[in-house]
Amino acid sequence: MPVPDEEIHPVATGAAASLVAARKTPVGKDGVKFYSGWFCPFNQRTWMALEEKAIPYEYVEINPYKKEPSFLKLNPKGLVPCLESNGIPLAESSILVEFLEDAYPSTRKLLPDSAEQKALARMRIDLVAKKCVPAYMRLLQAQTHDAQREARAEYAAALKEFASYLDGNKGPLHGGKDIDAVDIALAPWAGRQYIIENNRGGKLTAQETGEKYQEWYKAILSHPTLLKTMSDAEHYEPIYGRYLRDEAQSEAAKALRAGRVIP
Amino acid sequence: MPVPDEEIHPVATGAAASLVAARKTPVGKDGVKFYSGWFCPFNQRTWMALEEKAIPYEYVEINPYKKEPSFLKLNPKGLVPCLESNGIPLAESSILVEFLEDAYPSTRKLLPDSAEQKALARMRIDLVAKKCVPAYMRLLQAQTHDAQREARAEYAAALKEFASYLDGNKGPLHGGKDIDAVDIALAPWAGRQYIIENNRGGKLTAQETGEKYQEWYKAILSHPTLLKTMSDAEHYEPIYGRYLRDEAQSEAAKALRAGRVIP
Repeated sequence: MPVPDEEIHPVATGAAASLVAARKTPVGKDGVKFYSGWFCPFNQRTWMALEEKAIPYEYVEINPYKKEPSFLKLNPKGLVPCLESNGIPLAESSILVEFLEDAYPSTRKLLPDSAEQKALARMRIDLVAKKCVPAYMRLLQAQTHDAQREARAEYAAALKEFASYLDGNKGPLHGGKDIDAVDIALAPWAGRQYIIENNRGGKLTAQETGEKYQEWYKAILSHPTLLKTMSDAEHYEPIYGRYLRDEAQSEAAKALRAGRVIP
Repeated sequence: MPVPDEEIHPVATGAAASLVAARKTPVGKDGVKFYSGWFCPFNQRTWMALEEKAIPYEYVEINPYKKEPSFLKLNPKGLVPCLESNGIPLAESSILVEFLEDAYPSTRKLLPDSAEQKALARMRIDLVAKKCVPAYMRLLQAQTHDAQREARAEYAAALKEFASYLDGNKGPLHGGKDIDAVDIALAPWAGRQYIIENNRGGKLTAQETGEKYQEWYKAILSHPTLLKTMSDAEHYEPIYGRYLRDEAQSEAAKALRAGRVIP
């Protein structure tokens, strides 16, 4: 019997489907091959960076629960997101964003030039990885009322800490008026915040997250690069339903359940 | 009553004490101020990178369990390792190694120039952070026979995976004949492997880790930059004794006990 996660909708829908259709042409040495799962927030980070930087790429849909032998041959662990560049498979969403910065230096920069400011940006991306994402997943998977209340407070606190690094004078985003690598690190979870709100205690208020986060959230939620990489809400629902019932079998879900690092 | 971790030996000893004595001169704008805890493996990563790259720095000892108000003013979370550069406090050991690469481009490179090879190096550093270090700490803190056996197998498997990325033709280290950022990521735990071996089931054999790891271990353990940043074994013992009895109160120890990400 297949594990339930194998039965996800096979391809992107809505806005993301149009984007995929426009990015199916092989690009050869001029760009990269992007192996992605349409529904996965980690994939969306890399996807947003590719779009923001206008790097040529070919989109290849991968169901991470039902991997094709040809993909496993290239990338034996089968991790997505994966970028293939000059025949070399690369993984880990944040590392891929850094790779795009390094490999395409003439495209729009997503990290600051100053070494100190770049380190600060990386510290904020690290905060998203170590606090925001695990707290989001813990809240999603929490089954008892107490566990949900605790996880919600933890998620709100992580968002507040993230927002403490925003400089309102430049604009609502970390990058100011436009997004940068720090915004991209958290954006996919902003795009999925409604799932928390609909199932885990209602709207995340300014009282919980602070006002600065609310401004960031509003700005990122209407950002064209987030919007064009999102599929229709109805197709996320069955996937997140499994997380909400704590039945998901993704590597991230299993790790979190076991009290381990999200791989 | 102070928590036991406050009672650690206050300063570096042995080889590390000689190095500290040679690095106490303020360096001003020509270098960085390095806030460190002598016993901490994360600090040692940054320390090794500073030494390998021959960057001017001033060593400042911080007891992370008894932080000075002046340090907390600079760095409110009080995290070590911390580098102060142009008045800006920066944290997170792997981010600090990247910072030193960015800020001192004319020093010896610890990461490859090619964008793909740099991404692969970062993926291996990520493997150390997500698999090797948590497994080491889990093994250290495991109290029952079953938990120890399981954690030891997990640590050995993580080391074997790390070693699978070594290219024996270049030399025993990831960097070949000399160390690079990937070697530095794991080196401090190699320097503390004897604690596992003395307390958690004896020597880690080639049967457990594979032969390639054994060669790496031998090479890194005799590397001058690891050796000169190590203190005398007798002063690590009371610190690690608390981990071995699962009494340690460091942020990393508490996180691991609670099934959370090591901060």
